[in-house]
Amino acid sequence: MADSPEEEIDGTPGDIDPDEEKIVISVGGIRHEILVSSLIERTGTRLCNLAKKHVRGRKEEYFFNRHPGVFSSVMDYYRSGELHVPLDICGAVVKRELDYWRIDGALIEPCCWTNYSSYINKQKTLSDFSKSMIEEKTTLREMQNSSGWKKVQLRIWMVLDLPSHSRLAMAFAVTSFIFVLASITGFCIETLPIMFTVENVTRQCGPGQRNETVPTVISLPFLTYLDYICTSFFTAELLVRVLFAPNKLKFFQNIMNVIDILALLPLYVQIILDLTDTYNCLKNRRAVLETIFILRIIRIFRIFHLMKHYKALKIMVHAIKASFQELMMLMIFLLIAMLLFSTLIFYAERPIEYSMITSSHFETIPSGFWWSIVTMTTVGYGDMYPKTPLGYVVGALCAVCGVMLEALTIPVVSNNFALFYTHARSREQITKECPSE
Amino acid sequence: MADSPEEEIDGTPGDIDPDEEKIVISVGGIRHEILVSSLIERTGTRLCNLAKKHVRGRKEEYFFNRHPGVFSSVMDYYRSGELHVPLDICGAVVKRELDYWRIDGALIEPCCWTNYSSYINKQKTLSDFSKSMIEEKTTLREMQNSSGWKKVQLRIWMVLDLPSHSRLAMAFAVTSFIFVLASITGFCIETLPIMFTVENVTRQCGPGQRNETVPTVISLPFLTYLDYICTSFFTAELLVRVLFAPNKLKFFQNIMNVIDILALLPLYVQIILDLTDTYNCLKNRRAVLETIFILRIIRIFRIFHLMKHYKALKIMVHAIKASFQELMMLMIFLLIAMLLFSTLIFYAERPIEYSMITSSHFETIPSGFWWSIVTMTTVGYGDMYPKTPLGYVVGALCAVCGVMLEALTIPVVSNNFALFYTHARSREQITKECPSE
Amino acid sequence: MADSPEEEIDGTPGDIDPDEEKIVISVGGIRHEILVSSLIERTGTRLCNLAKKHVRGRKEEYFFNRHPGVFSSVMDYYRSGELHVPLDICGAVVKRELDYWRIDGALIEPCCWTNYSSYINKQKTLSDFSKSMIEEKTTLREMQNSSGWKKVQLRIWMVLDLPSHSRLAMAFAVTSFIFVLASITGFCIETLPIMFTVENVTRQCGPGQRNETVPTVISLPFLTYLDYICTSFFTAELLVRVLFAPNKLKFFQNIMNVIDILALLPLYVQIILDLTDTYNCLKNRRAVLETIFILRIIRIFRIFHLMKHYKALKIMVHAIKASFQELMMLMIFLLIAMLLFSTLIFYAERPIEYSMITSSHFETIPSGFWWSIVTMTTVGYGDMYPKTPLGYVVGALCAVCGVMLEALTIPVVSNNFALFYTHARSREQITKECPSE
Amino acid sequence: MADSPEEEIDGTPGDIDPDEEKIVISVGGIRHEILVSSLIERTGTRLCNLAKKHVRGRKEEYFFNRHPGVFSSVMDYYRSGELHVPLDICGAVVKRELDYWRIDGALIEPCCWTNYSSYINKQKTLSDFSKSMIEEKTTLREMQNSSGWKKVQLRIWMVLDLPSHSRLAMAFAVTSFIFVLASITGFCIETLPIMFTVENVTRQCGPGQRNETVPTVISLPFLTYLDYICTSFFTAELLVRVLFAPNKLKFFQNIMNVIDILALLPLYVQIILDLTDTYNCLKNRRAVLETIFILRIIRIFRIFHLMKHYKALKIMVHAIKASFQELMMLMIFLLIAMLLFSTLIFYAERPIEYSMITSSHFETIPSGFWWSIVTMTTVGYGDMYPKTPLGYVVGALCAVCGVMLEALTIPVVSNNFALFYTHARSREQITKECPSE
Ligand SMILES: [K+]
Ligand SMILES: [K+]
Repeated sequence: MADSPEEEIDGTPGDIDPDEEKIVISVGGIRHEILVSSLIERTGTRLCNLAKKHVRGRKEEYFFNRHPGVFSSVMDYYRSGELHVPLDICGAVVKRELDYWRIDGALIEPCCWTNYSSYINKQKTLSDFSKSMIEEKTTLREMQNSSGWKKVQLRIWMVLDLPSHSRLAMAFAVTSFIFVLASITGFCIETLPIMFTVENVTRQCGPGQRNETVPTVISLPFLTYLDYICTSFFTAELLVRVLFAPNKLKFFQNIMNVIDILALLPLYVQIILDLTDTYNCLKNRRAVLETIFILRIIRIFRIFHLMKHYKALKIMVHAIKASFQELMMLMIFLLIAMLLFSTLIFYAERPIEYSMITSSHFETIPSGFWWSIVTMTTVGYGDMYPKTPLGYVVGALCAVCGVMLEALTIPVVSNNFALFYTHARSREQITKECPSE
Repeated sequence: MADSPEEEIDGTPGDIDPDEEKIVISVGGIRHEILVSSLIERTGTRLCNLAKKHVRGRKEEYFFNRHPGVFSSVMDYYRSGELHVPLDICGAVVKRELDYWRIDGALIEPCCWTNYSSYINKQKTLSDFSKSMIEEKTTLREMQNSSGWKKVQLRIWMVLDLPSHSRLAMAFAVTSFIFVLASITGFCIETLPIMFTVENVTRQCGPGQRNETVPTVISLPFLTYLDYICTSFFTAELLVRVLFAPNKLKFFQNIMNVIDILALLPLYVQIILDLTDTYNCLKNRRAVLETIFILRIIRIFRIFHLMKHYKALKIMVHAIKASFQELMMLMIFLLIAMLLFSTLIFYAERPIEYSMITSSHFETIPSGFWWSIVTMTTVGYGDMYPKTPLGYVVGALCAVCGVMLEALTIPVVSNNFALFYTHARSREQITKECPSE
Repeated sequence: MADSPEEEIDGTPGDIDPDEEKIVISVGGIRHEILVSSLIERTGTRLCNLAKKHVRGRKEEYFFNRHPGVFSSVMDYYRSGELHVPLDICGAVVKRELDYWRIDGALIEPCCWTNYSSYINKQKTLSDFSKSMIEEKTTLREMQNSSGWKKVQLRIWMVLDLPSHSRLAMAFAVTSFIFVLASITGFCIETLPIMFTVENVTRQCGPGQRNETVPTVISLPFLTYLDYICTSFFTAELLVRVLFAPNKLKFFQNIMNVIDILALLPLYVQIILDLTDTYNCLKNRRAVLETIFILRIIRIFRIFHLMKHYKALKIMVHAIKASFQELMMLMIFLLIAMLLFSTLIFYAERPIEYSMITSSHFETIPSGFWWSIVTMTTVGYGDMYPKTPLGYVVGALCAVCGVMLEALTIPVVSNNFALFYTHARSREQITKECPSE
Repeated sequence: MADSPEEEIDGTPGDIDPDEEKIVISVGGIRHEILVSSLIERTGTRLCNLAKKHVRGRKEEYFFNRHPGVFSSVMDYYRSGELHVPLDICGAVVKRELDYWRIDGALIEPCCWTNYSSYINKQKTLSDFSKSMIEEKTTLREMQNSSGWKKVQLRIWMVLDLPSHSRLAMAFAVTSFIFVLASITGFCIETLPIMFTVENVTRQCGPGQRNETVPTVISLPFLTYLDYICTSFFTAELLVRVLFAPNKLKFFQNIMNVIDILALLPLYVQIILDLTDTYNCLKNRRAVLETIFILRIIRIFRIFHLMKHYKALKIMVHAIKASFQELMMLMIFLLIAMLLFSTLIFYAERPIEYSMITSSHFETIPSGFWWSIVTMTTVGYGDMYPKTPLGYVVGALCAVCGVMLEALTIPVVSNNFALFYTHARSREQITKECPSE
């Protein structure tokens, strides 16, 4: 309509040319007027098809029963060729609407990528997370549809595995967890010097071999009894759980169940060895002791049974799983920095003559690994530290670099935990507010 | 209206079918056209009822005097079945509008949960917080409506308890706080070696018992006088406060008042014991000394009287209360990690033979508790540190794990403090700007 | 219009009653229809007045030439009585519009306070900050309007004080800063053992007094010369700057100039004392040495001359000034925690008998102050650490508490710096993009 | 239209005066009515021109086919003279629209600067970053357009340089990286005491000079062989890469290639020196040993070849490049604080008499540099710590200051990494979702 002289000079088009064909599209109560030509340009989209049809038989106005906010962005795309998404509308809605208008999500401009994909990403991560949170509910429902032995099995299984299901289940879970705590406490205090005596035991290993006198650790009786009681309980529990597990394969694939089984082994191995003669011969051998020791340590991981009762721990485990890639990144960065700084400190702190090689803490590069990790995490035990001017510079760089490394990567890692935590709290919140859910 | 051929092929409906019944709803100046059928689908909502009525006797257009922004989301819900909330409108408004349209808040999609519930959550937390901030004002008003002895009592109570109420009250509060500081300072410097002498005191405990010579700590006279003066003042203050407290039960439930009372006890106990013979016999007994010692320490908590004058401390106390759940989470995570790492370091650093058991720092698991906490908080005193290659690996993991643990959980914890702090500042800001409040 | 039966049952009003008087207000192209009664309710507002007038002589529609986004919130306020502000509009616009509609900003709901006031607050802080950034420009302009001696004075002052003004000014500033660096470097390396010799100087102080032999530090000659050269330059610079300063009062109020003057004193004091007999007598007196020492140290603060060249340092200084309240808060929290933990560790680590008092690191409460600060900042030198089980618990709590304290308060403090930094960068960005500014 | 009495009293204009000339502008379906006079005020803008033309020959309504969201801000600017930008629209769109309406971006109010420029800034940083990410693709395409020797060269170059291009290329890259790891591992374990023997080698340097017996380090044979094998492989690889590099200049400008070349030197230098007599004479000289040592260390930087395989490392390197200014800032702040605190601690911890100068850790200012860095990064080795009350105060301030300094500057630095990381992930996300890209 209106073309001022300077408009014509600088060549930028003013408002819409009255002679060009326009099309009126009304979405969510707002009328949009746009040139037919700019619609036809973007082939494959819904509005392009509409425009083509419009040329054949025109109509006054087209109504679409869609989201008006996203349509503003769509219109802007037709006009300018750049697809920017609105920041006040949930990315999931944007995706739905773009799909409806047959506009490819990959056309979104880079400046709007993060906003758009963070929603999509969040939605995916959260749907995985939510699924695991309601898994119990789902299995519960599936179970209720069965009958006969299956029904009994499932009813008992629910008591064994779903503390929130009934009072009995809760009582069982609490009892079980008290045994876990007792077992772990016993394991920890067993190592206190007042809890054991060292006695010299003389034994003969096999006929024709000479007697050996070996100092042996004898724990206080009450600890031994505690161990026997706990092991009996855990054995019984495990057997019952195996018996009533609806899906045996899934049961043995669960890492917690594997831990439970392995944690039971050391006492049984010891009993078997004690009963047979071979034990006295093997007991002193490092490999056997080592294996039993490791198996004994496994019981400490039973503490993760707490997950059943404490949702925050569950969230943490999920967050760690979801952030695996980012955690690996932090590790790799730490390793690279460790390699660089331990080489540099080795160079900076090396003695002038090779014969003086033991005068420094940093006589080998691998010993610098420990120093650089301790420095970069800013723990700084002080067992090793540089002593030369060049070493001071490397040390200062290492400390600053560690601080930077953590500062750069940790926000990326901690995102998932905060996301899961606020999500889980929101869920509680909304469920509490709207009990109809 | 317009149905292009490909629309019919892929089965996605184009714009609204001209033959289907539409309804026009105008909210906040924007007209929305929607199919009657999609309204009727969502039973129980206000618009469903409207649509049913519309079928009986139709009207051209329905006006609703509601928020147009939220109505866009409501329309989108009717169209698509997914309820996403707009991100640029306060969650409280969204809640109000959803309530009006009789749409269940639990229908909100997970991707929009956090945005929605964070507002609701924030509103609740802040209303608790604001209530405590204006509690003084409320009690003030209630008090002014009384008369007689009650009025006198309240008038004096306001002087004693509300520093901001009058100049006299402020003067009293400052005096009181100066005494608190003097008492705490005296308590602290009393422990300096130049502040006391150790004398051997010989005493006889009861007839027929032998004399004992016990080294006794004698503080400098001025400290003893300071103690007497402060105790006298606090006793007087406490008596006056008890006398004029409008609600005696509430008074004794207040933790600060309990601290005040307990902090007064040690001097009186000592005086009573000094006056009776039993003291000389008891004084040397560990239990009595211990109890007096603990009571003496309680006075240090009088520093929290600062809360009356310093709002930031009040905010901190509230934030800690509100974040109790998150703080517990941090503690539990630290305890679990402590348990794991102290077991692992015990295993990694254990001597080859049990007879060599005292050669390592980590001879017991509980001693590893201290090490793992010191490492995970990155304090790293250096009193204990691993010395074997496997120990280095465990130590490095422990340090990194500690850094991660803090990084993951602290943002979740610190939210409340930042929220309260900015809220309290905003309040000051707005009150200052608009003094009419 | 439409009242479904259930509407009447639950008592919530449906859409607008056709008989009630409505008013149509059009703002920014969007028509809003609202009941006259709900406008009249909020007395004192612009629309209340309009409604009153409307009753006298009605019109079809009222046009207002205002922001449509904020008007949605205003309409919502009239409808619901709650004032929530839109989150996608700058707080300054909201404030302007609310002022126009004569709605008190204090009516905003608490959930929207932070969003609204953060903008207002930001605007204020930034306007102070921007003012200081363009102060130079303003003084420059003011100066150019003068003439005669004033003009000469200002022209030279600009060379002395505004490095970015001309090439000469930049050259002068760089020269000056090189002297600052030389002076500081000299001061630092002067303390290296290879840089000085200690000689025994015998002198007699006043007649009738005995000779004293005192070890005296003699620096290497080149350091003495460097000191003389730098002091000469700084003296000359200071004299010239004083001479050409347009505002003498402001000149001496500037902390940097005071530092410059004080930093010059030690050499002159020394020369004067060397020349007079009194020096030899005074030189050895602690008070004189102390004073000269402190004055010598002041020169290190000349490093802040870097502010002239390095904008980030200027931003930091401003951020610290603006965050004074928050920094005080951090300090007070640290002091309170320090007091508590040093008392607790004193109690936890105290010897069983008072005669054993020197066996622990924590024999006094003040010595615990240092330990608790070192622990709470997670530095952990390892010069002091607990050794009893109870001490371990206190130490662990202290470390965790320190980590928490920092985590809670630091985000609040660091806000201002990030705000200033991004603001200063944005300014550069926008100025670069749009050089017309 | 409506002028209530009080409107006239307080002088604020009510709604639009019916007699003043209005103009109707319709953008994106929303009609805006505005006074012609307020358009004409802002000269140079598109709407000013329109208004001038409108005066000459008026029209009922003007349609503009532009973004309606930004136009609200534009209208607001004409009405109020303040240009605030909407927060829910991408800054790039705002920029485009402002350019269209011929409104200078520098007119944006300071409160909206950061929001606006952060988008512009982000867009620029990301476009640089994206360019480097797709550089490979571009060169690939360019290469495919060549022929003859060039084509062969490029085909082989792609195998050598683009691991993601083909299976062969990936195999080659992995092989190469395994050699890098082998070389670095060899280099590290070479320093372990069990990996070498020190032998006394007697040699004569030149005729007429006396024999020297020098202890020489002899590595285990397998390490020497590993070194030979790796060096051979790297030499071959380098030669092939030089041969087939399409752009020799660019090849030698690449820092990774320079590292590769330098890392090869030490072995060749050693072989050459071993073959000639001069070596035995030179070998013992510090300068030669030093040079070979430094060259040997360079090989550790080959670890950055990992960048080819691991995108996160690439992102980190880019983030560090982009944050160069911020990293410099952190460094400068650390240096200034280091200077201040080392001077203060030197003063605080200095001995009373100069003759007692060696009794303290802090006898020189430069030795305080190390202490202050170790304290400010909260590493706190404990090799140096203050021991006087004043020193405790300086130490506490230094620790708190360090914590603050990191807290203030790190969020500014870490922004870029988080931006790049989420951007790169978004890209993957979107590419995966929409494979059509
Ligand atoms: K440390
Ligand atoms: K530390």
